[in-house]
Amino acid sequence: MKRIAILGSTGTIGVQALEVLSQFDTYEVVALAAGRNVERLAQQIRRYRPKLVAVADDEARRALHALVPGEPVDIVVGDEGLVACAAYPSDVVLNAVVGARGILPALAAVGRGARLALANKECLVAAGDLILRAMRDAGGEIVPVDSEHCALHQCLRSGRPEEIRRLVLTASGGPFRLWPKARMAEVTVRDALRHPNWHMGQKITIDSATMMNKGLEVIEAHHLFGVPYDKIAVLVHPQSIVHSMVEFVDGSVMAQLATADMRLPIQYAITYPDRLPAPWPRLDLASVGTLHFEEPDLDKFRCLRLAIEAGRAGGIAPCVLNAANEVAVDAFLREAISFLRIPEVVEAVLERMPNEVPQSVDDVLRADAEARRLAELYVSKGG
Amino acid sequence: MKRIAILGSTGTIGVQALEVLSQFDTYEVVALAAGRNVERLAQQIRRYRPKLVAVADDEARRALHALVPGEPVDIVVGDEGLVACAAYPSDVVLNAVVGARGILPALAAVGRGARLALANKECLVAAGDLILRAMRDAGGEIVPVDSEHCALHQCLRSGRPEEIRRLVLTASGGPFRLWPKARMAEVTVRDALRHPNWHMGQKITIDSATMMNKGLEVIEAHHLFGVPYDKIAVLVHPQSIVHSMVEFVDGSVMAQLATADMRLPIQYAITYPDRLPAPWPRLDLASVGTLHFEEPDLDKFRCLRLAIEAGRAGGIAPCVLNAANEVAVDAFLREAISFLRIPEVVEAVLERMPNEVPQSVDDVLRADAEARRLAELYVSKGG
Repeated sequence: MKRIAILGSTGTIGVQALEVLSQFDTYEVVALAAGRNVERLAQQIRRYRPKLVAVADDEARRALHALVPGEPVDIVVGDEGLVACAAYPSDVVLNAVVGARGILPALAAVGRGARLALANKECLVAAGDLILRAMRDAGGEIVPVDSEHCALHQCLRSGRPEEIRRLVLTASGGPFRLWPKARMAEVTVRDALRHPNWHMGQKITIDSATMMNKGLEVIEAHHLFGVPYDKIAVLVHPQSIVHSMVEFVDGSVMAQLATADMRLPIQYAITYPDRLPAPWPRLDLASVGTLHFEEPDLDKFRCLRLAIEAGRAGGIAPCVLNAANEVAVDAFLREAISFLRIPEVVEAVLERMPNEVPQSVDDVLRADAEARRLAELYVSKGG
Repeated sequence: MKRIAILGSTGTIGVQALEVLSQFDTYEVVALAAGRNVERLAQQIRRYRPKLVAVADDEARRALHALVPGEPVDIVVGDEGLVACAAYPSDVVLNAVVGARGILPALAAVGRGARLALANKECLVAAGDLILRAMRDAGGEIVPVDSEHCALHQCLRSGRPEEIRRLVLTASGGPFRLWPKARMAEVTVRDALRHPNWHMGQKITIDSATMMNKGLEVIEAHHLFGVPYDKIAVLVHPQSIVHSMVEFVDGSVMAQLATADMRLPIQYAITYPDRLPAPWPRLDLASVGTLHFEEPDLDKFRCLRLAIEAGRAGGIAPCVLNAANEVAVDAFLREAISFLRIPEVVEAVLERMPNEVPQSVDDVLRADAEARRLAELYVSKGG
């Protein structure tokens, strides 16, 4: 019996993770963390009987308590509660929290030697060096849930780290791949939320539309696999069938292919090194017929370029990029700024904040907060 | 220093293997076997200084001796000489002999615990069970050189044998993929030798045109990886970039991609588990642009169907199929029979010979000889 904690249990990834786990009788859900969706969390408590759950605040706690009056479950709140769920004894912590809030629970999980099944890329982007150091010190491990990194993880099994020539992250190109650059000024929230292949949360869907998501993934890949930036490439592949590739020094390129279904990487991250049978639809390449590949347009997708530059710069730059992007995307979603303002806000914040090497999580969180403050300023100024 | 023997050293694969080895100073060529191309063999002797070489017969031996009068090399002849080269102490035997003549040297190599780098698929087709048994008994190993099986070998590193859902062998479809079935009667030798992607020997090029080659590869894959026939699929992929794929039980499909260059699988089979840097052109997927996949037409390519059926039947059927095919292809190449007669000859011989389970290599060689005799008969009758 393996014990698992799921952080972000009522979100897209969390719900699918619980669906994946219901196939097997070898996993016990010991902790769940959610935000304010207490109805869904109450259902999950009744079904999976966790020992500990976390919600956003006291109001959510009261509402949840009213829904599950008799359940033998401890309810904790806020960021502290989230970290308590990660720290609760378990074998696997699935971190599917959105944004930089994932940093502290990630540290809590790897810092006690657990496996971190990581769907929250922002924590590696903002605090990759610190989290990797904590992981190595405690003997923990990270298995990525992002479909691209899950693909890389699988491809890397065919060779040794020193045999890597480069990692190739594939990108769908999002809904605006074929839009001329001139038309990008007209993008609406509705347009940007229309992802061609994946059904995901709003934040990541917008990040896919700006290709910031791919930039964050480049930084994530750098940390996860210890590969320098000049050995990480991005290739546009509109069908989202090839989820990423590894080119080895002998010229062999290993690729992982599958239907666009997050349940597969979720299951892999939980069950690795085992592969367990799965009921979801199989890939039928003859029906797909054609796979297409092209270079990304770094001119049209400025966020991708900014992210790669921030990654190369290192220090707090990726953290600042990520924080400013979260604020900008949020502002775009509530129609406070235009689509093309997103990279402008991010770039302005990056230019304003001097880079430095964070010595602790506090340094990271301080940079994160300051970047958010500045980004809010640019958002309110710019319109 | 690793010692290597190359059987078929003056052929397409042998020449490329020696080119691959010249990159490294950690391999010593101890034995070379060729047929009648004594000029090229003499050059190879002067450059690689093997201890032992084999040629087709005494005439070739005399010609070779005249070319390398002072060289300290033993020259042996015929099938016995070929086997002597495989039996000569070495770490790796590259078997790139054409046809069923590869059986005895394959047995000699795996039977003394050496690695067999296998470019001769016919030996596994005709005597797979016997060769695998000899390999297991002596603790030898086989690493395939065929680009498809090399791809499978690499993909299989991402999972365990019991996690395989199916192997997917890709096939270019050959020069006649887009020809209507009705036009297939007009195929000339020139047409059939015009392979779209690979430059190979004549026998395998014709086998690619009939898709018999893919059928033989299905049988080869069955033996190499111990996978039943209902878990081996063939998928047409005209670009020959994806060299084959493995679908695992969780729905993940691992694929190996590379430019169509045999030096890569040759090097992999020799250096595995290491991957060594290689100078040949890298795959540029953005330039390739599009990869296409479709189901094979088992009606148009009767040889593929016949091979899979013979594989499923087991016993001597694959050996008979292979022997009859060698005779038929040879007859087609000297324009003694038409292209569409190739599967007819093979099928007629298969129907004529009762199937049985071979108990020894002698049984296999007897079936091989009888199938050849019958095939010659059909060739001379049919026209």
